[in-house]
Amino acid sequence: MPGLRAPSDYSQEPPRHPALLVNSKEPFNAEPHRSALVSSYVTPVEFFYKRNHGPVPVVDDIDKYSVSIRGLIEHPKELYMKDILKLPKYAIAATLQCAGNRRTAMSKTRKVRGVGWDIGAIGNVLKQINSGGRHVEFVSIDRCKEENGGPYKSSIPLSQATNPEADVLLAYEMNGETLNRDHGYPLRVIVPGVIGARSVKWLDSINIIAEECQGFFTKKDYKMFPPSVNWDNIDWSTRRPQMDFPVQSAICSLDDVINVKPGKINIKGYAVSGGGRGIERVDVSIDGGKTWVEASKSQKAGIPYISDDESSDKWAWVLFEAEADVPETTEIVAKAVDIAGNVQPENVEVIWNLRGILNTSWHRVNVQTGHSNL
Amino acid sequence: MPGLRAPSDYSQEPPRHPALLVNSKEPFNAEPHRSALVSSYVTPVEFFYKRNHGPVPVVDDIDKYSVSIRGLIEHPKELYMKDILKLPKYAIAATLQCAGNRRTAMSKTRKVRGVGWDIGAIGNVLKQINSGGRHVEFVSIDRCKEENGGPYKSSIPLSQATNPEADVLLAYEMNGETLNRDHGYPLRVIVPGVIGARSVKWLDSINIIAEECQGFFTKKDYKMFPPSVNWDNIDWSTRRPQMDFPVQSAICSLDDVINVKPGKINIKGYAVSGGGRGIERVDVSIDGGKTWVEASKSQKAGIPYISDDESSDKWAWVLFEAEADVPETTEIVAKAVDIAGNVQPENVEVIWNLRGILNTSWHRVNVQTGHSNL
Repeated sequence: MPGLRAPSDYSQEPPRHPALLVNSKEPFNAEPHRSALVSSYVTPVEFFYKRNHGPVPVVDDIDKYSVSIRGLIEHPKELYMKDILKLPKYAIAATLQCAGNRRTAMSKTRKVRGVGWDIGAIGNVLKQINSGGRHVEFVSIDRCKEENGGPYKSSIPLSQATNPEADVLLAYEMNGETLNRDHGYPLRVIVPGVIGARSVKWLDSINIIAEECQGFFTKKDYKMFPPSVNWDNIDWSTRRPQMDFPVQSAICSLDDVINVKPGKINIKGYAVSGGGRGIERVDVSIDGGKTWVEASKSQKAGIPYISDDESSDKWAWVLFEAEADVPETTEIVAKAVDIAGNVQPENVEVIWNLRGILNTSWHRVNVQTGHSNL
Repeated sequence: MPGLRAPSDYSQEPPRHPALLVNSKEPFNAEPHRSALVSSYVTPVEFFYKRNHGPVPVVDDIDKYSVSIRGLIEHPKELYMKDILKLPKYAIAATLQCAGNRRTAMSKTRKVRGVGWDIGAIGNVLKQINSGGRHVEFVSIDRCKEENGGPYKSSIPLSQATNPEADVLLAYEMNGETLNRDHGYPLRVIVPGVIGARSVKWLDSINIIAEECQGFFTKKDYKMFPPSVNWDNIDWSTRRPQMDFPVQSAICSLDDVINVKPGKINIKGYAVSGGGRGIERVDVSIDGGKTWVEASKSQKAGIPYISDDESSDKWAWVLFEAEADVPETTEIVAKAVDIAGNVQPENVEVIWNLRGILNTSWHRVNVQTGHSNL
């Protein structure tokens, strides 16, 4: 595609904030410290987690950049940025998260997370679809080893892509600014309420297809297996690609093992559920889960958060806060309940899976008193 | 309303199947034995759980029966059965369940459950709604003590009632036959994927209102409280009415405590999740939860169940089956995972609530060997 290209090496990577915790340099995978997450409802772009699979694509000429719309559609076309900018503009707040969030705690916590999107449009783009079209495949321009040097791609059901209630969008802005290179400049997909892997960046083409995408990240990754499946007996064909994600929460104001002075401490974090389901309740325990207190919840300043109200951002996380008196060394725990009554599992063992996705078990932080280094 | 009336006593109750387990005679509350649930995908009407709050209403003259549509709507009207029968007819399979299913296991197992609906229509009925209408209230004709002798009523969001994807229906048939008296003859509401309490029977009127229904069953019942709330400190206003329900499963082929001969046994049951979310997996353990095997899943004969496929009934339960070798006295456990990755909680303690709703903890059956009475 003219205008946007995939470099073959990492010499043209964008600048990044030095405070990011880097998990992999090439391809670049990094996340903010957990405390940065709860400092604001909308995560600043520079602290938003970055999850790439190859060198970041380069825009040579934005006027020449276009997205191809092909497949089972009556009139295939090229959609240029000037065309996209003419489409109705929507803004939604959506939490985007990697399916592998908290993966490290499945083997022994890794924190990748985010909120806040400004937008383009998609239902408007997909018209005159032929019968037989059942999935929409999004193809990036980047090159990744999992696709043997081919581009990252994934698909979602056509019914979701064209349902106005699902808010699936083509995004050219994030937090009111032009999308930056790490987050998919010049154009990416946002699929709210669904694992981040379906929100394809550096969009090159949109294909209307009969069967789901046959690429690596749809067929051989991001699927939920039971604990009994290992790398010797895995059969990828037995599972559906993960889309919607389950209810979860995490404490962000305290590190995993932290020394505090005995007394009142503030416990802050986030809670979110997939599919647009709001958060009914966040419970916090300061005795390892024996007793619980309910945390306060908020999204926007001055507006009480009501889980299923129009005033709430249905696709976005909720920040929670509780104050507790910590008299001695203990385990602090958080767990959330969504509006469907779904709860987080108590232990990671029962949801362990070989790909380490969706670790939504109760979040536990060990707090030590009497040895304060503060 | 002419045509349908609420008797003041229980002298005109309909006949019921003698095999039902009766929890309360007046008002009539009964359920089938759990084994009857898994004998067929569609539960026969006579074994379908019955949950009434007063004497069953009586139809005197079906030609005179009508539903009033009132409130924030441009043209209030009376909808007669002949009008309803002219509306487009839809058929859906939906699991309906009482929010109090498995309540007994919260204090010490009560089984109320069901599947299978034939239908009328509703989005078609609600037209010309005035601005300000945000909820749809369904009012029955019956008399119940919780409403001080007034009728049972409840509401759902207007957006749900008028969304074709939500399949909210006015039902005059069930399993292909005219609705029977216990199940709401001549007309009831079906709200798929939502607790049974919103599927109002013996429909008298439909009101378009600005705020949710102010009745007992919306404001002071069927709300999910944390374990710390008791009858002394309860504040009903702090919680939203429960709508959508969480993922769950139950073993139905074995009683709670059962004697079996050592050897192969068949473990059958059902799994279901709210909001149209399919079942990704059902795990069964024959050692109290230490190790697990995956159960097979089915809905319709000859059609493989695929959790998110068009061929599956999204609102209906899945029957599961596993064969296991039981060598000794043990605890058999079932738990399900829905397509959003939500799981059932391991223990009932963490979801205990004073109203005893939504006991979706792992279902456990104690099996004794060596003392067979078979």
